[in-house]
Amino acid sequence: MPKIVDHDQRKVHIAEATWKVIVENGLEKATVRKVAATAGLSVGSLRHYFSTQSELLQFSMKLVTERVTQRIQSSHYKGDRVDIAIQALGEMLPLDEERKIEMEVWFVFSSKTLVDKKLKQLSEATFEEMHNGLINIMQFLQKGNLLKPGLDEKLEISRLHAIIDGMALHHLLHPDKLTYEKMIDTLTYHLKSIVERGNES
Amino acid sequence: MPKIVDHDQRKVHIAEATWKVIVENGLEKATVRKVAATAGLSVGSLRHYFSTQSELLQFSMKLVTERVTQRIQSSHYKGDRVDIAIQALGEMLPLDEERKIEMEVWFVFSSKTLVDKKLKQLSEATFEEMHNGLINIMQFLQKGNLLKPGLDEKLEISRLHAIIDGMALHHLLHPDKLTYEKMIDTLTYHLKSIVERGNES
Repeated sequence: MPKIVDHDQRKVHIAEATWKVIVENGLEKATVRKVAATAGLSVGSLRHYFSTQSELLQFSMKLVTERVTQRIQSSHYKGDRVDIAIQALGEMLPLDEERKIEMEVWFVFSSKTLVDKKLKQLSEATFEEMHNGLINIMQFLQKGNLLKPGLDEKLEISRLHAIIDGMALHHLLHPDKLTYEKMIDTLTYHLKSIVERGNES
Repeated sequence: MPKIVDHDQRKVHIAEATWKVIVENGLEKATVRKVAATAGLSVGSLRHYFSTQSELLQFSMKLVTERVTQRIQSSHYKGDRVDIAIQALGEMLPLDEERKIEMEVWFVFSSKTLVDKKLKQLSEATFEEMHNGLINIMQFLQKGNLLKPGLDEKLEISRLHAIIDGMALHHLLHPDKLTYEKMIDTLTYHLKSIVERGNES
C-alpha cells in the first residue's frame, strides 16, 4: 500500500522549516537545500512542492498572514467591544513565541522586498490584508457606537496600523525596552483615547 | 608635497558608499571589497579606515543617527511649538530621498541585528537615542503648556515612537499606500489629538 501523505500538511511543515531557517540564519540562508535538510526531506521531494526558492518563500510568508487570520476567526474573545478589539489587535502583535516567529519572518521578508522586486506583490497584498483587518476592527467599534465623534476614519486607520507595526518591530528588536506588558498597555491606552464609553449599543 | 586627505570626510564618503551598496544590493553584499569598489578605493585603503566589515557597518549605521541629530540641531523651524514639533518629528520620517536611504539602511541593519548579535548593542543605542529625542519633543510641548491634561507621559512616548517607526516602515515598503502627504497628515492629526490649543505659554 502506498504511503499516504497529506500534501497540505507537508507544505505547512516545509513552510515552518523555512521560518526556522529564516529566524535562525537569515533569509539569505533559506535555500531549498537548507530548508530540505531542516525539514528532514530530500531536495527532490521538497522540489516536488516548491520548485524554486521564490515559491518557497512566498508560501511561507502567506502562511504568516493565514495564521493571523485564522486566529482572529477561531477565537472566542471575551468582554465588551473594546476588549474584543484589543484582543483581535493583539493577534497582530508578537505576544508569544509563535507570533514572534511570524513577525520575525514578516520583518526579514519585508526587508528583502526592498532589494528583491519579485517579492513586492506579496508584500503589498500582506499590507492590504492587514489594513483591511484594521478597518474591520474600527467598524466593529463604530457599530457599537463607541468611537468619539469627530474622528477622521482614514487617518485613524493609518495611525493604528503604524502603532501596531511600530510596536511589533520595537518589541522584536528590543524586547527589554518595549516589553509585552507595555505593548498591551500602549494599545489599550490608544484605544481608550478614541473610544467614548457610556453610549454602547 | 604629500596629498592631504581629510580622514573624517573619507570615512563619511566610505559610509555613504556602504549605504549605496546596502540599498541597491542588500546588507549581505556590503563586503569590504564591494564597498571599496563603489567608493572608488582600493581594498587596502578602505581597510586603513575600517579593518572589518562589522566596523564598516557600525560606522555607516551611526552616521544615520548623526545625520538625523544634525538636521534637528541645525534647522530653523518656523511657527508655534506644535509646528516645530511636527517639523522635528519629520526629520525621523523618510520625507525625501536622503532620509529614505537613511531609513532603508536602518531597516536593513535592524533586520540583520536579529541574526547577528554583534550588532545588537548599536541597535539598542540607536533605539535609545531616538526615544530620548521623542521625550525632548514631548517636554518641549509640555513646557509650552500645550499637552492635554491627564495624558500618560510614558505611554505617549511609546505610542509616538511606534507611530513614527511604523509610518516610516510603511512608507518605505509601500510608498503608494502610505504617501508622503498621508504621513504628514497622520502625524499632524496625532499631535493635534494630544494638544490643547489656547493656553500656550
